[in-house]
Amino acid sequence: MKLLEEKIRAEGKAVNEHILKVDSFINHQVDAFFMMQIGEAFAGHFRDKGITKVVTIESSGIAPAVMTALALNVPLIILKKQSSKILNDDLYQTAVTSFTKGCEYELTMSKHFISKEDHVLIIDDFLANGEAATGAIRLLRLANATVAGVGILIEKSFQPGRDKLIEQGVEVFSLARIKRLGKNLIEFLPADSKMTEPRN
Amino acid sequence: MKLLEEKIRAEGKAVNEHILKVDSFINHQVDAFFMMQIGEAFAGHFRDKGITKVVTIESSGIAPAVMTALALNVPLIILKKQSSKILNDDLYQTAVTSFTKGCEYELTMSKHFISKEDHVLIIDDFLANGEAATGAIRLLRLANATVAGVGILIEKSFQPGRDKLIEQGVEVFSLARIKRLGKNLIEFLPADSKMTEPRN
Repeated sequence: MKLLEEKIRAEGKAVNEHILKVDSFINHQVDAFFMMQIGEAFAGHFRDKGITKVVTIESSGIAPAVMTALALNVPLIILKKQSSKILNDDLYQTAVTSFTKGCEYELTMSKHFISKEDHVLIIDDFLANGEAATGAIRLLRLANATVAGVGILIEKSFQPGRDKLIEQGVEVFSLARIKRLGKNLIEFLPADSKMTEPRN
Repeated sequence: MKLLEEKIRAEGKAVNEHILKVDSFINHQVDAFFMMQIGEAFAGHFRDKGITKVVTIESSGIAPAVMTALALNVPLIILKKQSSKILNDDLYQTAVTSFTKGCEYELTMSKHFISKEDHVLIIDDFLANGEAATGAIRLLRLANATVAGVGILIEKSFQPGRDKLIEQGVEVFSLARIKRLGKNLIEFLPADSKMTEPRN
């Protein structure tokens, strides 16, 4: 998505080889109209795939995910990060390690809102090691739902997340793919979304 | 907002005198189209108030807040709940106690995105004791911004939040006001939004 790459170039801050800050339009300040355009880009790609629900992980994925759900006219499910295991028959839980944030949490989903009839699109802001998305896939498969794909705003292509998801048989669709980061350096790979955009 | 009251009656679960679960359309599963209607209801009320930013607190307020920001055509700022004080000149922080959840956190906002030029609408899903909204007001006043009002989806009118905010000189606009909760009992007060709805 050309517009996202332009925003990253203009407003993103590469702190070092690992960290890209996009606080001014995605993570802290949110450009709502841009989120709507992002939702429409995901919906454009996944529209004919029979999606019944959009799933995201709190909290940075919520804004783009609710716009995607709106564009696809399906409900959104927000997976919760609990600090500890909850003994409750109504819940699915799975442990997730965040290497980026250096913490562990129990990803949690109610059994009431996802069933074997569901074909799910997972939306998240970043894909790095793929731990959060893999946790979401584990929960969805516990519910016997199927996964239509993972839609990502910014993929750190130098980290193993994408390969890890593809190995699990899941399509990854990233609006921007970062090849390399460095102090004040941001290099892109061609994004998955290129073909769905109008030609200039 | 009649539609919200109807949804609460149909899908909300009053667990006891204090707890109302709205997991099926607001907090865990999210009805995206309904969130858009909620955003339009807030925008309809606050449209002529010169709002420059919408602010919410992660994570249940994000979906209605991003729709409000979209309808008002202004940016959204998501305040973060940090577990500890961060020593950083770029941040405002204030301690907030959640009586509902029995925990304390540092509400955190970057200095880069709010200034004395801003006139801010705060959006949140629930208003109970008003601690989170009061924390948001403290941060905004640290930044010398002004507060246009607080927009709430569900106000527990039997708790002191509303009065606490009004004492601080802040308008409260609630789409649904709960007078009393009990096991399988939900009683409403007339909502603030009544006058802005079309007559039947």
